[in-house]
Amino acid sequence: MAENVDDNADKRSGRWNDAVLTRDEQYRLKRQAVIREAGRAFSREGFHGTSLEDIAKTLNVTKAALYHYVKGKHEILYECHKLAHDLGDEAIERAHIEGKNGLDKLVLFLLSYIETLTGEFGSCVVLTDVDSLRADDRRDIIARRDKFDQSFRGIIQEGIDDGSIRSCDPKLADLLIMGAVNWIPKWYSPSGARTGREIAEAFVAILVNGLDAGPAKSQ
Amino acid sequence: MAENVDDNADKRSGRWNDAVLTRDEQYRLKRQAVIREAGRAFSREGFHGTSLEDIAKTLNVTKAALYHYVKGKHEILYECHKLAHDLGDEAIERAHIEGKNGLDKLVLFLLSYIETLTGEFGSCVVLTDVDSLRADDRRDIIARRDKFDQSFRGIIQEGIDDGSIRSCDPKLADLLIMGAVNWIPKWYSPSGARTGREIAEAFVAILVNGLDAGPAKSQ
Repeated sequence: MAENVDDNADKRSGRWNDAVLTRDEQYRLKRQAVIREAGRAFSREGFHGTSLEDIAKTLNVTKAALYHYVKGKHEILYECHKLAHDLGDEAIERAHIEGKNGLDKLVLFLLSYIETLTGEFGSCVVLTDVDSLRADDRRDIIARRDKFDQSFRGIIQEGIDDGSIRSCDPKLADLLIMGAVNWIPKWYSPSGARTGREIAEAFVAILVNGLDAGPAKSQ
Repeated sequence: MAENVDDNADKRSGRWNDAVLTRDEQYRLKRQAVIREAGRAFSREGFHGTSLEDIAKTLNVTKAALYHYVKGKHEILYECHKLAHDLGDEAIERAHIEGKNGLDKLVLFLLSYIETLTGEFGSCVVLTDVDSLRADDRRDIIARRDKFDQSFRGIIQEGIDDGSIRSCDPKLADLLIMGAVNWIPKWYSPSGARTGREIAEAFVAILVNGLDAGPAKSQ
C-alpha cells in the first residue's frame, strides 16, 4: 500500500507518538498505534463519543494520514475487537500447551491474560460496544466471544473433572473471573504502585486460594 | 407537590408499569420508577444516548408527566448514583451490625449487595458515568465513592488483622471483588436459571474458598 509519509520527519516531530521503530514494521506498527489509541478513546468516551479527529489528535497526525491505515471508525472498532480476541485466544492456547491440569491451565491463562490487560492493548480487550459494529462484523465477534467463553469454561470443567478445581458452576466461575479481570483496564495505571505481573499474581492468589484464612488453608 | 394525575386511570391503563400500589406511597414509588428505568436505560445506552422521552416511553407516560417527579436528566443521573450509594452503604452497615469478624462481615456484605445488584435497582449501582454529573453532584458522588471504598477496604483489613482473612492487599482485593460483582447486572437476567441468592452464594463460595480443590481444602 502506497504511503506518502516522510518517516524521518515522523521521527523528528514525534508524530505517531514514536511508534516508528524499524522501516519494515512501520505500516503494521502505525496501524496498531491507531487501533491502540482508538481502543483507549472508545473505552473512555464510548464509540459514539469518539471521532476519527480525536484519535488522530492523540497520535499527533492528521485525519487524512489515518486513512492510509484504516477505512473508518467502524473498521477500527472491528479491529479492536478482533485484536482483543486474538490476545484472549493466545492466552488460552498457551495455557493448554504449558498446563498440566485444569487449575494449572487456569492459572497460566490468568497470568498471561492479566499481563495483556495491563499492556498497551488492554483497553481494546474490555470494549463492550458490540452493538456499534456493522452487522457482519458483529456476527463474527459474537461467534468469537461464544467460542472464547466455551474454551474458558472448558478449562474450568477440565479442572473439576480432573479434581484440581473444586466443584462449582463453570459458567458462574467464568462470569466472576472475567468480570474481575476485565475491569482491570478501567483502574490500572502504568504509573501506579503495582506492575501488571504483581496484579496478576495477587488476583490469582485470591481466586485460587480464596480469602478465608481458616486453619485448613493457613500454610 | 401538586399532581394532576388520575390514579385510577393509571391503574386501568397500566401506566407507570403498575408501580402504583397505595395512595400514600404513590409519589415516592413513581419517582423511584423513573430512577429505576433511567438507570436501566443509562446502563444500556449510556447517559448521552438516553433521552427523557426514552425514559417516559418505557414507563408508558408522557415526558410532561416525568416533570412532576424530576427536574431533568442530570437530576435523574444524580439520583441514580445516590441510590446506588445508599444501597451499598446499607449493605456495609448491616454487615457491621451482624458480622462477628472481618470475613464474616465480608460475606454478609456480599450476600446482601449481590441480591441488591440482581434486584430492580441493580442497573443504577453499576453506573460509571460520573463525568456526566454536574460539578457539585460529581464532587458529592466521588466523595461518597471514596468513603465506600474506604469502608469496604476497612472490612478486609479488619479480617486480616483479626486473622479471619488471609494476608492480601486490601485495595487489590477490593478491586477484584467489586469488578466481579459490579459486572453482574450486565449479564444477569431475572428470567435466567439462577436466582440472585444462588448467584450470591456461588460468588461468595469462590471468593472465600477459592477454586483450588487441593487436599487441604477438599472437605
